[in-house]
Amino acid sequence: MSENTKAYGTDGAKKDLKSREIKRRDVTKEDVKIEILYCGVCHSDIHAARNDWENSTYPLVPGHEIVGKVTEVGSDVKKFKKGDLVGVGCMVDSCQECGACKDDLEQFCEVGMVGTYNGKDKHTGKQTFGGYSTQIVVREEFVLNVPENLDIKKVAPLLCAGITTFSPLNHWGIKKGDKVGVIGLGGLGHMGIKIAHAMGAETIMITTSPEKAEDAKRLGADSVLISKNEKEMEKHQGTFDFLLNTVPVKHDMNPYLKLLKRDSTMVMVGAIEPLEPMHGGNLIMGRKRVAGSLIGGIKETQEMLDFCGEHNITPDVEMIEMKDINKAFDRVTDSDVKYRFVIDMQSLKDE
Amino acid sequence: MSENTKAYGTDGAKKDLKSREIKRRDVTKEDVKIEILYCGVCHSDIHAARNDWENSTYPLVPGHEIVGKVTEVGSDVKKFKKGDLVGVGCMVDSCQECGACKDDLEQFCEVGMVGTYNGKDKHTGKQTFGGYSTQIVVREEFVLNVPENLDIKKVAPLLCAGITTFSPLNHWGIKKGDKVGVIGLGGLGHMGIKIAHAMGAETIMITTSPEKAEDAKRLGADSVLISKNEKEMEKHQGTFDFLLNTVPVKHDMNPYLKLLKRDSTMVMVGAIEPLEPMHGGNLIMGRKRVAGSLIGGIKETQEMLDFCGEHNITPDVEMIEMKDINKAFDRVTDSDVKYRFVIDMQSLKDE
Repeated sequence: MSENTKAYGTDGAKKDLKSREIKRRDVTKEDVKIEILYCGVCHSDIHAARNDWENSTYPLVPGHEIVGKVTEVGSDVKKFKKGDLVGVGCMVDSCQECGACKDDLEQFCEVGMVGTYNGKDKHTGKQTFGGYSTQIVVREEFVLNVPENLDIKKVAPLLCAGITTFSPLNHWGIKKGDKVGVIGLGGLGHMGIKIAHAMGAETIMITTSPEKAEDAKRLGADSVLISKNEKEMEKHQGTFDFLLNTVPVKHDMNPYLKLLKRDSTMVMVGAIEPLEPMHGGNLIMGRKRVAGSLIGGIKETQEMLDFCGEHNITPDVEMIEMKDINKAFDRVTDSDVKYRFVIDMQSLKDE
Repeated sequence: MSENTKAYGTDGAKKDLKSREIKRRDVTKEDVKIEILYCGVCHSDIHAARNDWENSTYPLVPGHEIVGKVTEVGSDVKKFKKGDLVGVGCMVDSCQECGACKDDLEQFCEVGMVGTYNGKDKHTGKQTFGGYSTQIVVREEFVLNVPENLDIKKVAPLLCAGITTFSPLNHWGIKKGDKVGVIGLGGLGHMGIKIAHAMGAETIMITTSPEKAEDAKRLGADSVLISKNEKEMEKHQGTFDFLLNTVPVKHDMNPYLKLLKRDSTMVMVGAIEPLEPMHGGNLIMGRKRVAGSLIGGIKETQEMLDFCGEHNITPDVEMIEMKDINKAFDRVTDSDVKYRFVIDMQSLKDE
């Protein structure tokens, strides 16, 4: 039997997160048990905690940017051993048999992937609990190797913000010399800049806020395009090979579509809500495309971690203690973080 | 000097088309002079005549689905000789030097392609006049060979409706066994069905109107999906390899996005106006894409004509006389045509 595990979670949409005890499932022969060292704070955690997407079940323990050390492995586990530095992202299980799973795209599992939190555990039939916790038990296939050279405190947000931006850049084949625009400078956008830059792209930060220019350049942007400046926007018309749109809310996409070259794509990774009307002509003229992308499969997530290890990429983070999570949620909502909060889980152990 | 040429055109947005005389340019050494036998009536002709897109210059002579016989060729013309059966579509010129032209995509010419009507003639600097006329003079590169085996009366609409639907099906690589949905049964949709069917796709007509089912099957649809039937729509969810959206006005695209398989595309060819809001989640879940497509390049238009020759594909047309054009415009606006009007230009010659 599992001992109780400390966690922070919420009992309802309008309630603060508070300390509680949860039970993790027993370690099966395919499972890896992980002592959580750090957990990133993703905007999705807030949406889930507050039931913005109307699919939350309570109590809810958020957290899907998890880094920790292996403390126990099941008898069939091959890839991991006690003491390994590992990560867990947004998924902890999938059918492993459908077309999507066979194509290494478990995020699109046809049976339904199991979310790291607010999902349904296949073994216990109960609610899954996320990484705002001291430990977690995860099926081997959904555990990732974390490169040892990276600053471990900063790695956690790669598991969601990192793969969410790496995957479209990788899938659409961004290469040296491509002109890539990253729209919006937040948790996702700042990772998009770092990754596109490391891929060798001419990386342009596209933002409404001139005050973000300096920071964007520090993060790796070659230049900054202020989207409110119509003259500048016109100058760049039809010149972008790819646009990564990280804006988390609906907005007018038409000015961005005009930036694309013929046959090029803008990929939406931020706004999961009804978008503002696009003009059909902005797609038809130049055979342009708008697409969506959702995190990435496990294989690609490992590729992303290896890529970040190789290029020494980590997010810019602000470390917090577990007890400060409710304040952190408010600050994320107010876009007052550069660029991701990471919870030091020692602070929960010490509570 | 050119003699005067008979034509039908309009002097203003709210005026009827009426008989007039126009001047065609003198035949240069690169030009082909064509006696127009038939001209299709495209919905764009009406938009242009009525200045719906706010870019019309008057007098305006519509018509960009032109079939005729060569009556004269310039000294440098190599591909055509007097008596050849030829076609002219939506373009009569382009720069021939930019990236788009070099890629055989003159419709996206970076300098700007010259429209068959309401464009600016590069030789005379004057307005181009379309195919509602007894003859036209066109640069050799923009003249197409018409397969001799097709029913010549019916060929004209291939030059716009044909290429507009062939191009996306061809560009996105539709092949035998693909499940293709054609949304909307009008001039474009009925060509989409015929062409997708001839490409070997499992072709599904998607329409709001149950009364169109029988006709859709006659045209080549393997089955018909009534988009108002939520149960049926749900059954087909995530099963389509490709959607060709020919609906000419804005509409809710979200139910169609749900029909697409992972990584599949819906291509918009009809609505050149602000579209209704798409839900970001419908793109993100399944990494789906929405794209636009505009007619096709000259090389692809010839491929389309050859394909139609090989598969004996012509549109379903209703023949009219030139004098009946204003009534025909009203009937197109009322969707009262199966599926394209073609003007027998002998009726103008006889006036």
